[in-house]
Amino acid sequence: MRAFALASLTRPPFPERVSAHVGQVGPESTRWATELGLVGSPATARRLDRANAAELAGRTCPDARPEQLRLLADLFTWLFTFDDRCDDDGLGDDPARLAPVVGQLLDVLDLRGGPAPPGSAAAAGPTAAALHDLCRRVRAHGPPRLLLRFAAQMRDYLLALLWEAANRERDRVPAVAEYLQMRRHTGGVRPSFTLTDLAYGGLAEAICQADLDASHLDDLATDLVCWCNDVFSYAKERRQGRDGHNLIVVLAREAGREERAGLLDAAHRFNAGLRAYLRLESELLAGGDPDTLRFVNARRAWIRGSYDWSLGAGRYH
Amino acid sequence: MRAFALASLTRPPFPERVSAHVGQVGPESTRWATELGLVGSPATARRLDRANAAELAGRTCPDARPEQLRLLADLFTWLFTFDDRCDDDGLGDDPARLAPVVGQLLDVLDLRGGPAPPGSAAAAGPTAAALHDLCRRVRAHGPPRLLLRFAAQMRDYLLALLWEAANRERDRVPAVAEYLQMRRHTGGVRPSFTLTDLAYGGLAEAICQADLDASHLDDLATDLVCWCNDVFSYAKERRQGRDGHNLIVVLAREAGREERAGLLDAAHRFNAGLRAYLRLESELLAGGDPDTLRFVNARRAWIRGSYDWSLGAGRYH
Repeated sequence: MRAFALASLTRPPFPERVSAHVGQVGPESTRWATELGLVGSPATARRLDRANAAELAGRTCPDARPEQLRLLADLFTWLFTFDDRCDDDGLGDDPARLAPVVGQLLDVLDLRGGPAPPGSAAAAGPTAAALHDLCRRVRAHGPPRLLLRFAAQMRDYLLALLWEAANRERDRVPAVAEYLQMRRHTGGVRPSFTLTDLAYGGLAEAICQADLDASHLDDLATDLVCWCNDVFSYAKERRQGRDGHNLIVVLAREAGREERAGLLDAAHRFNAGLRAYLRLESELLAGGDPDTLRFVNARRAWIRGSYDWSLGAGRYH
Repeated sequence: MRAFALASLTRPPFPERVSAHVGQVGPESTRWATELGLVGSPATARRLDRANAAELAGRTCPDARPEQLRLLADLFTWLFTFDDRCDDDGLGDDPARLAPVVGQLLDVLDLRGGPAPPGSAAAAGPTAAALHDLCRRVRAHGPPRLLLRFAAQMRDYLLALLWEAANRERDRVPAVAEYLQMRRHTGGVRPSFTLTDLAYGGLAEAICQADLDASHLDDLATDLVCWCNDVFSYAKERRQGRDGHNLIVVLAREAGREERAGLLDAAHRFNAGLRAYLRLESELLAGGDPDTLRFVNARRAWIRGSYDWSLGAGRYH
């Protein structure tokens, strides 16, 4: 897909940047995952190594200090290992098995990083313990409202996984509109934005809370990151016999066309989405507010950084 | 269930209060629902009349001005009619039919009460149009952050309905822990709290955003409102052949006991929850902060008001 993506997706017209701390953060994040027991098998370890969570963090959040970059990289590591766990033993295809796991993780979120009483959900295995650790650190490093936002976005992510599982169980391919809506949540992009905002002092969060147009820009940025991911990961997903939770499949199915046509449609949609993003961005920036510019720069780095990471990421090969 | 509830549930030790505007707001809310097309049948009209959304609003938010009370009553009306819609034609038992509806409603939430372009989800029928109208008014009456909070809580509510539908489809009764977690979202109580906070100038929202203990009190208040509802509605749900999404059923099933025993367990749990709520409440109030007292008074009115409404509500007979 790399060649197709390079030829068909408009390269986001923002500078390519990468943090100088990637080399330090990468091994730390791997150690964190290993010590918490997230890396259950050599296969998971290999996949995690190829995914290079630290590089994704370094590209999407290039100006973060090492500690904040670690937090973002650890979130990616958590998301990647949970994704693998859902894939590996069919957990992600079975709502009846996934729902109790999701319930436990939602319980962890409701602890809000505070002390976990003995026997609480935070002790229900490595996935829960690691999520609690993430919340604990978000709580330590930012204002309460950022933790609440992060927890709410993680909740949506987990609930959306149940929607995916119910679809998989019955081999259901959702319609395009439904897929586009749910895709905003299934990728874990929103909570990742929030940890980026945390690294930058919470500014973007304050802007989105005060300006609904900025919130809308946030939606468009989320879409672009997810659609780009769908295009790059499509070939690998197909090779692995994965299901219809990909923009290409959904577009082709609804149009009654071959998936090859869906590829082009997905690229067109990404490119049109990028144009819409740029239009709204320039409207927001017309006011000349320096805080808005910093918010926009944070989202630009995400759009460009996730594109660049996808070009290189072993996770998709 | 009224007699059992009266005998077994601790009556919340807060004053019984009710707004003087209920008589005005009730007919207005009914007219709103009718004009928007939410009342699809005479049976729905009868159920809505018996449920008395305005009285529930008047009891849970007794100090609101009429316009804000209307907004809360209209939310209840929306929740009641959507609940009926899910029940009446099996929509709520069928994830594959419910998911596109949920997707549309999530699209409406993402409009954030702003202008709805032609052909947008806000025009996809009365349920969508009415939800958009609610968002529009939240946007008009409060700061953006309250609208974003309301939308996020409605999103959780809608996603949790998909969890319920997946359970119903396979006659699955969730375990107690999973049920307790998801129950925080299935009732629509959280967005109702937010509209109460809107009526009181957004104070409680600001406190919860700044103080994670206050957020925890919010969780406990949500639980009490939902569990009380489960006890009062149990007999009617059983009579109608409804499923296992009730605390009584879940407790009995997990203990391997008859549902009669589940009734007592549910009452014990409510009473223990009320004690835990009161303990945390007094810790929060020990600081002597007048804003915290106003926040706590708002939640007290909810716990007591929903209890009193349940005692009288035709919806449960």
